[in-house]
Amino acid sequence: MSIVGIDIGGSKTIVGVADENGNLINKKRLATLVNLGREQVIDSVKAAVWGLLSDYHMSSEDIDGIGVCCGGPVDAERGLVLTCPNMPGWDNVALAKIFSEEFNAPAWIDNDATVATLAELMFGAGMNVNNFVYFTVSAGIGGGIVIDRKLYRGSNGNAGEFGHQVVLPDGPPCTCGDRGCLESLSSGSSIAKRARRECFDWPSTVLLHWVDGNPMLITSEHVSRGAAEEDEFSSYIWNQAMNYLGIGVANVVNILNPELVVIGGGVTRAGELLFEPVRRVIEKRALSGLSKIVGVVPAALGDDVAVVGAITLAMERLGLVGEGL
Amino acid sequence: MSIVGIDIGGSKTIVGVADENGNLINKKRLATLVNLGREQVIDSVKAAVWGLLSDYHMSSEDIDGIGVCCGGPVDAERGLVLTCPNMPGWDNVALAKIFSEEFNAPAWIDNDATVATLAELMFGAGMNVNNFVYFTVSAGIGGGIVIDRKLYRGSNGNAGEFGHQVVLPDGPPCTCGDRGCLESLSSGSSIAKRARRECFDWPSTVLLHWVDGNPMLITSEHVSRGAAEEDEFSSYIWNQAMNYLGIGVANVVNILNPELVVIGGGVTRAGELLFEPVRRVIEKRALSGLSKIVGVVPAALGDDVAVVGAITLAMERLGLVGEGL
Repeated sequence: MSIVGIDIGGSKTIVGVADENGNLINKKRLATLVNLGREQVIDSVKAAVWGLLSDYHMSSEDIDGIGVCCGGPVDAERGLVLTCPNMPGWDNVALAKIFSEEFNAPAWIDNDATVATLAELMFGAGMNVNNFVYFTVSAGIGGGIVIDRKLYRGSNGNAGEFGHQVVLPDGPPCTCGDRGCLESLSSGSSIAKRARRECFDWPSTVLLHWVDGNPMLITSEHVSRGAAEEDEFSSYIWNQAMNYLGIGVANVVNILNPELVVIGGGVTRAGELLFEPVRRVIEKRALSGLSKIVGVVPAALGDDVAVVGAITLAMERLGLVGEGL
Repeated sequence: MSIVGIDIGGSKTIVGVADENGNLINKKRLATLVNLGREQVIDSVKAAVWGLLSDYHMSSEDIDGIGVCCGGPVDAERGLVLTCPNMPGWDNVALAKIFSEEFNAPAWIDNDATVATLAELMFGAGMNVNNFVYFTVSAGIGGGIVIDRKLYRGSNGNAGEFGHQVVLPDGPPCTCGDRGCLESLSSGSSIAKRARRECFDWPSTVLLHWVDGNPMLITSEHVSRGAAEEDEFSSYIWNQAMNYLGIGVANVVNILNPELVVIGGGVTRAGELLFEPVRRVIEKRALSGLSKIVGVVPAALGDDVAVVGAITLAMERLGLVGEGL
């Protein structure tokens, strides 16, 4: 029995195959070449899945279900991507149907943060926790909510938009059209953007050295590495982003009173450089009755959290995980 | 069969008696004379309840249960008030036991916003709604969360602290010790405080006329009335507070994706002067997928929402309302 997971991100896609217990047995990472157009991207994902199967001498007959996830809102019931931030032309694409037909197996789709939450609930840091929230901090910021060991999807499937809470009303413009959303202050792309814009005032920063003087090449990884090396400009940009991230997490703690906050996504590769300030801000800014009981930990599934999430989604729909199991 | 409800607020207390269906049959409002000390306040509440009973020729034998609520955190299991904002000396008071002994009936206690949410769920605006949130906007700002028709109390009973989300990181000091919490910007007391402080620059404001020139007498009701009459200073203070309230509600909408937001508490007596700007900010600042499905309405139980909530709490514990009923 095998389950396929497909995590389509704006810059990279991860495909994986798991056994009936959700253990990844093979996975592959490929660049999402958005500029080549949607058809080409979908074809390369199909090819990658076929490649995974052939590595293990498997055919599509061995696939029991397929889970797909991507950033942005989806219509889970109809199996549609509604919109994909950073992937123009991906509106209302029937992605579940496309992969279902290719591999002759049932397929389901959901938001990447939602399925990552499901993965941490079933197989990760939330395995023994009743109430927790999951934050993903990568190009954007999203999240998911678990109450009483059940994923809470919201009234129309959109709960957990932690990245679009406003924490600085007149702050920078956000991809959603608003200003001062957490995502516009603490996401990987906002950290990079801010560093690119402000580095002109800090000509001696190590960041410009690392990118041969081309600010457009600065990434959030550069900034966190610079902060780790105590580069003054990097620390200034990084600390500000972490302060807002801490405020955003503290707000969710005050609202939901979780036992645990799990944080995943690319930006968390910075490790304690992220977790230490976030914990400090929660301690300082959340109500003490709530902050004293809440733990803040990295996603146990690391970089695989979304692809394992996609697999978990298919397992949930197939009745292999979930309530009563 | 009768249930007693006791809603102890920082400035007023409401006591009520209801039948087994939760219908208030008698109620009484009294000032909470905090300065006279805790014993005296408790004695006057006891006397008020005895008065309610005698109006209907009832004795304590007719009481099946007592629900008590107050602002601030409680230990619901042990029946304790942990702390009461605006009521110094009320820490760790075994209020449930005190009333239980006086009236020889079981008594329970919970936070006022929590029980108000329960009241709106069972008897108010949330009667036919699966997922909703309740905001109380009075001296402070609190709230409650209903998911799948169940009150979500949080991991240690503190969920729904909507008033302590930070919406302006360097904003005014809050009663909780933080800065820029929603409560410090949009609660009744923060509106009054801001008007008192800034009226010196607006000597011709109608507010100073209404209070005979003594800024310390300005209340949030004065400010909303001034705004209704298009007094420039009042409108300036009021609109700012409503803008932040809208941001705070929009954040909760983005996080919880509710079908409905119910807003109660003294400040909502301003009516559309409050609801119109709050709806407008949600429309502008929450994600469209979430804002388009959410309604924003006043508490159906009006000023009685917390005392009916206290009654509902007792009814829930007695098994008269709740799941499966």
